[in-house]
Amino acid sequence: MSIPSWSATLIGSIAAFCTTAAFVPQVVRVWRLKSSEQISLTMFLVFSVGTLAWLVYGLLIRSDPVILANGVTLGLSLTMVSLKVNYDRRTRRTTG
Amino acid sequence: MSIPSWSATLIGSIAAFCTTAAFVPQVVRVWRLKSSEQISLTMFLVFSVGTLAWLVYGLLIRSDPVILANGVTLGLSLTMVSLKVNYDRRTRRTTG
Repeated sequence: MSIPSWSATLIGSIAAFCTTAAFVPQVVRVWRLKSSEQISLTMFLVFSVGTLAWLVYGLLIRSDPVILANGVTLGLSLTMVSLKVNYDRRTRRTTG
Repeated sequence: MSIPSWSATLIGSIAAFCTTAAFVPQVVRVWRLKSSEQISLTMFLVFSVGTLAWLVYGLLIRSDPVILANGVTLGLSLTMVSLKVNYDRRTRRTTG
């Protein structure tokens, strides 16, 4: 694998920014609606495991962009897991 | 950046598998519930742009795992965009 050119680095940076920033509006939406039954807990649990694995991968290959992007994404993904568990518990208490 | 050892490759493969497979239960959940107002369209649009950029990055650095993982994730993310637009239009037609 050759060292990426500046264009690859630019495209990679845009990619990392988008796939990290994308989670912010989803967190905000669920937090504002205070409900989450359409959100898949499995998605965000599996995604969190994947992001943790990317973080370890970044540490192993010593890639700061991989570490940084996945550290932030892991935080946002775990926030979604926390909101989902919290709102689902609240819904069960209200309806059951 | 040194060439990743087998352990980094293994962790990277687990990471790629998880962050791709994670979208399947979310697609299934929204498809079964036939509603998506808690899903953020912005999230899946920005995520699709990001995944497309990762795909281009994979082509530029000639990394088959990056190309493969992000090709599949892009398909799943665009499926979410399509379901969201479709169900939101249906909801507006019913309520408005």
